[in-house]
Amino acid sequence: MARIVQKYGGTSVGDVERIKNVANRIKAVREAGNEVVVVVSARSGVTNELIARAKSLHPSPPDRELDQLVSIGEQETIALTAIALDAIGVLAKSYTGAQAGITTDKVYTKAKITGIDGKSIEKDLQAGKVVIVAGFQGIDDEGQVTTLGRGGSDLTAIALAAAIKADKCEIYTDVDGVYTADPRVVKDAKKLQEISYDEMLELASLGSKVMQTRSVEFAAKYNVIFEVRSSFNTNPGTIVKQEVAYMEKVVVRGVAVDKDQAKVVVSRIADKPGTAAAVFRALAEANINVDMIVQNVGHDGVANLTFTVPQSETLKAEKALAPVLKAVGGTVTLDDKIAKLSVVGVGMRTHSGVASTLFTALADAGINLELISTSEIKISVVIAKDKADDAARAAHKAFALEKL
Amino acid sequence: MARIVQKYGGTSVGDVERIKNVANRIKAVREAGNEVVVVVSARSGVTNELIARAKSLHPSPPDRELDQLVSIGEQETIALTAIALDAIGVLAKSYTGAQAGITTDKVYTKAKITGIDGKSIEKDLQAGKVVIVAGFQGIDDEGQVTTLGRGGSDLTAIALAAAIKADKCEIYTDVDGVYTADPRVVKDAKKLQEISYDEMLELASLGSKVMQTRSVEFAAKYNVIFEVRSSFNTNPGTIVKQEVAYMEKVVVRGVAVDKDQAKVVVSRIADKPGTAAAVFRALAEANINVDMIVQNVGHDGVANLTFTVPQSETLKAEKALAPVLKAVGGTVTLDDKIAKLSVVGVGMRTHSGVASTLFTALADAGINLELISTSEIKISVVIAKDKADDAARAAHKAFALEKL
Repeated sequence: MARIVQKYGGTSVGDVERIKNVANRIKAVREAGNEVVVVVSARSGVTNELIARAKSLHPSPPDRELDQLVSIGEQETIALTAIALDAIGVLAKSYTGAQAGITTDKVYTKAKITGIDGKSIEKDLQAGKVVIVAGFQGIDDEGQVTTLGRGGSDLTAIALAAAIKADKCEIYTDVDGVYTADPRVVKDAKKLQEISYDEMLELASLGSKVMQTRSVEFAAKYNVIFEVRSSFNTNPGTIVKQEVAYMEKVVVRGVAVDKDQAKVVVSRIADKPGTAAAVFRALAEANINVDMIVQNVGHDGVANLTFTVPQSETLKAEKALAPVLKAVGGTVTLDDKIAKLSVVGVGMRTHSGVASTLFTALADAGINLELISTSEIKISVVIAKDKADDAARAAHKAFALEKL
Repeated sequence: MARIVQKYGGTSVGDVERIKNVANRIKAVREAGNEVVVVVSARSGVTNELIARAKSLHPSPPDRELDQLVSIGEQETIALTAIALDAIGVLAKSYTGAQAGITTDKVYTKAKITGIDGKSIEKDLQAGKVVIVAGFQGIDDEGQVTTLGRGGSDLTAIALAAAIKADKCEIYTDVDGVYTADPRVVKDAKKLQEISYDEMLELASLGSKVMQTRSVEFAAKYNVIFEVRSSFNTNPGTIVKQEVAYMEKVVVRGVAVDKDQAKVVVSRIADKPGTAAAVFRALAEANINVDMIVQNVGHDGVANLTFTVPQSETLKAEKALAPVLKAVGGTVTLDDKIAKLSVVGVGMRTHSGVASTLFTALADAGINLELISTSEIKISVVIAKDKADDAARAAHKAFALEKL
């Protein structure tokens, strides 16, 4: 007997037929003698529909009311899932975030979990019930409903797994694991059996879209081993954990492409101490996520500063920079016809030559590198967006990932 | 300055345009210097949609989960209403039943309010906020969500008005008050300016459909004066209170018709002590609402027992009676082609001749009486359903209600 936390995303519980399917899966796991806690998201589309309704009333609805509103999406699916389980003879009980004792800070729409009181859940598990918990939501110390922001349901599952000391945490989604590259682009991409938190973090932050980084960070912090797998088949997924057996041998474990970035070039700004700080302080104050940053050597007292931001934030970035550039000089150019390609692997730490293999492969494919940045376990390059798929295939081949 | 509780039903908040309309009404009342607490129902149709979804998963979903599910309907409208108010510059805060401190017993789907802790609401009112409370829902002492059953939002409004000592309670609905008869049937029906709790109770229980009896009973118990009025115009509505000024003068105040009843005749049952008790015990145990009951004088050791039940419960009634009839003999006949017509008025207590006026008017209109029953403030008759509208017009005219 094991204690298992399962999380089903919005597509997996998208309609009553899919909820029935999920209920049958849960039943099988329960009847195999396991204790089961299930975290569900809102049916796919529901959260966006609610937000659209709110925005038709108000250009920027108050965050507290937005959380009060969107939290009903998960409350619907917990009840429906518990009902579907009861219909097939499985004792089940639904829990809102508040009922599950998930407390958070007061930062509406992107609250952080501050604690989980698992006592009620523990009692129901001991009474033989399957416990269904609303993902994505919690409650602050004044009883206000909060939501955890994007990827919040994964976070709920991983935090619950830590709190109730689960033996396993399974994240069900619409892909059946983490691949060496996007299988729609790279035909011979392979599913990884295991991956380390660090590698998953880089892949998550690099547009592989399987999970948000904060959930992976949380799992790493509390050492929660989890498996990413599909709710539409029974294939084994990818297990994410601290150390991976063959880590020393394998250098590169995946190629990720992010097409949602834009390049911002700030040209001819004063080449003196404090200029870069002023630029990035303005961006930070506007809450803009800046990614790769490159500054070249200055000439004639001026320098160029280049960085990438999410495409959706380019106008906000331009606006935030205007007053700074007035002060320190310089002009801004935006380019959203770019993509970021990254190769990721913990093994990279102890192997040289990864950069040269990548750059050679891309050069051979006739692809120009606009920016380069590296970390301990990844190398990222910015290239033309229309070359991104070719680049992914070339990199995948260069590291022989199809043979993993 | 007054403290006002307003309740808007599902049609009044049916879509975002109507929610905007409600927000504008609230704004006007708030800006006139009043403290405002608003109770809202789910958008019309939402509750039924959720129940249908649950029933597509389960023929009889567990009540606890049903309450967890349907309570999201009101949670949506409280948030949307607060957002709509914020959009027009009115400080507002939404409250679920739990957040409003509305505690109930544990009878899911038809819980009774056991208490209201109005402290948070009081604080927000003092801070100048409009408070928006989810109708129809509460929380038990273990944090489980409960719902109050049909008419629950009216009950929430009236109970809140009592708890926070409101000066006024306004129940907004899609009719603009209580009429002397259904204006769609009786063209010269008049809106009543005032009506007593007792009269309202009879009208409510007689298919005038303005409100459920339990809300009126609650208002009577705690002496909450409320006004029934329309959210689609600014006409004054009908005020419901303990004593009505001209009570002594006016005998009959309204004619109500209920076409949703069926007549059940239990023929040739043993005419001995305990038979009727056995019949009605069986019906009570099956939770069937029995209305008018008539037993004739027995002959030859057998008697006939006639009563009415809601049409939707006739099959349930037949099933509940089967074992009893096996024991005491007799057969059951069902007739759903009937209607119940009632005339109601507190003044009736002190006036004779009401019955004779009614019976004469119906006889003159060629309408046969199948059953008769009377209470202190009403006379009800069962007649053929296809004569119901004619009967309503004849009764209305006989008591000169168009001149009220």
